[in-house]
Amino acid sequence: MEMIAGGGCDMNKHKKAQTAQDEAVAGSLKKIKNKFIVMSGKGGVGKTSVTVNLAIALANKGYKVGIMDVDIHGPDVPRVLGINKEMLGVNADKKLTPLAYSRNLSAVSIESLSASKDDAIIWRGPVKHSVIRQFIGDVEWGDLDYLLIDAPPGTGDEPLTVAQVISDAKAIIVTTPQEISLADVRKSINFCKTVKMNIFGLIENMSGFSCPHCHQAIDMFGTGGGERTAKDAGINFLGRIPFDPKLVTCGDSGTSYQEAYKDSPVTTAFDNVTKLMSELI
Amino acid sequence: MEMIAGGGCDMNKHKKAQTAQDEAVAGSLKKIKNKFIVMSGKGGVGKTSVTVNLAIALANKGYKVGIMDVDIHGPDVPRVLGINKEMLGVNADKKLTPLAYSRNLSAVSIESLSASKDDAIIWRGPVKHSVIRQFIGDVEWGDLDYLLIDAPPGTGDEPLTVAQVISDAKAIIVTTPQEISLADVRKSINFCKTVKMNIFGLIENMSGFSCPHCHQAIDMFGTGGGERTAKDAGINFLGRIPFDPKLVTCGDSGTSYQEAYKDSPVTTAFDNVTKLMSELI
Repeated sequence: MEMIAGGGCDMNKHKKAQTAQDEAVAGSLKKIKNKFIVMSGKGGVGKTSVTVNLAIALANKGYKVGIMDVDIHGPDVPRVLGINKEMLGVNADKKLTPLAYSRNLSAVSIESLSASKDDAIIWRGPVKHSVIRQFIGDVEWGDLDYLLIDAPPGTGDEPLTVAQVISDAKAIIVTTPQEISLADVRKSINFCKTVKMNIFGLIENMSGFSCPHCHQAIDMFGTGGGERTAKDAGINFLGRIPFDPKLVTCGDSGTSYQEAYKDSPVTTAFDNVTKLMSELI
Repeated sequence: MEMIAGGGCDMNKHKKAQTAQDEAVAGSLKKIKNKFIVMSGKGGVGKTSVTVNLAIALANKGYKVGIMDVDIHGPDVPRVLGINKEMLGVNADKKLTPLAYSRNLSAVSIESLSASKDDAIIWRGPVKHSVIRQFIGDVEWGDLDYLLIDAPPGTGDEPLTVAQVISDAKAIIVTTPQEISLADVRKSINFCKTVKMNIFGLIENMSGFSCPHCHQAIDMFGTGGGERTAKDAGINFLGRIPFDPKLVTCGDSGTSYQEAYKDSPVTTAFDNVTKLMSELI
């Protein structure tokens, strides 16, 4: 993967490279039926966990799914999938090959290009823009039913680049029910409206919690705030995902929660969201 | 507040404005004794809550404290302080006057410049760099014992700008105990080492949780991972702050947790960290 950004005197060469990359980006996108960007106003609302679990649920239904991790500074997708030790490969066409999680699910992340997992990526916005374009054009995604894009929290360079480069991407916005999170999610909704990105809907994560010992309800982040916010903003409410500490443990160890807890309320909640997503096919 | 960035043919004028701003930035910084940037690898670890509570604890000890909220896309400081309805003022010298929380504590945030609180700030990196410089040079901070800077999660434009503009800023890194958070915090530590920013130490937030009904321990994010990570990286461990859902409620409603729960373990934990900070004076 060669950086095409950067200064240079030979403008013609630069322009040619740009056009070639534009074509590569368009070529990759043409083969992907549905593109979703998973966004959040605030960090720590479980956006990566939602992205990965939706992807696994769709792949389990037999769809071809890709995850593109554009959270350049906190790329957690490979760890949650349990494939963080692997590196991206390169094929005969000099395209990057995504990490394979299963026959139906593959992923690309900056984490799988860094030799040391603890190194910080210290890049300003324009470099990130260029890398995200390369994650589309220079990757051999193949034919996909769904591409799920895991964006960093907020309304900065990364979601803006996605909105500009993938004009038919739909947004899934993840929030937790407490007010401080909802205040930021309203910014995400307005971001989508401003850049004219379709909003598929809003998911309320970590919604309600009961003590695993005495089973009494614990008011951690509250519940219901996401649904009210969606209603107020006139967007679809996709459902509530209860808080389950086992989701944290599974994310840490890179094991599939849905595999381990097939009949849990969390697995059912993810399944319900993917039903809405598969109505698009 | 006038934007000095942006194109223009009159380079001399641009240079003059740049020099004037460099001087304003240096002038503001000279009057501030200690500068701390509160960072995190991942979002949602309670970074803003830690920043605000440390600031209140220092102000309660009689120090003059300022909070600069450089989380441009998720500016939560005014809401947590309960002063989110107020707007920044301008004084006779055309400098911005920070929001006053109390006699000893004031704050500046992009939130207090936006007419609509739900609007998203959609800026690419270079504009954010310029705004952060203005938050220092164009604000009448006055004489401060402490400036606490609330950075967005990760290692992007905002912390990089702070590292470049405030060369004597020390980093306080906040993490939660689970592995996925620790993986990202190691990136923050390496960021500081790369840009040669002093690390004051690491705080483990949301450390341990017991059911408010049956008082049994609930393994939410685990405990102890922060201390191990600090030890491995050879940096100071500043202490553990237990998880308390009341901190969420207080943050949402903008009331001071430390005022309401004076003898709680959380208040004691914040007090212990500020003792270490006040040894610097």
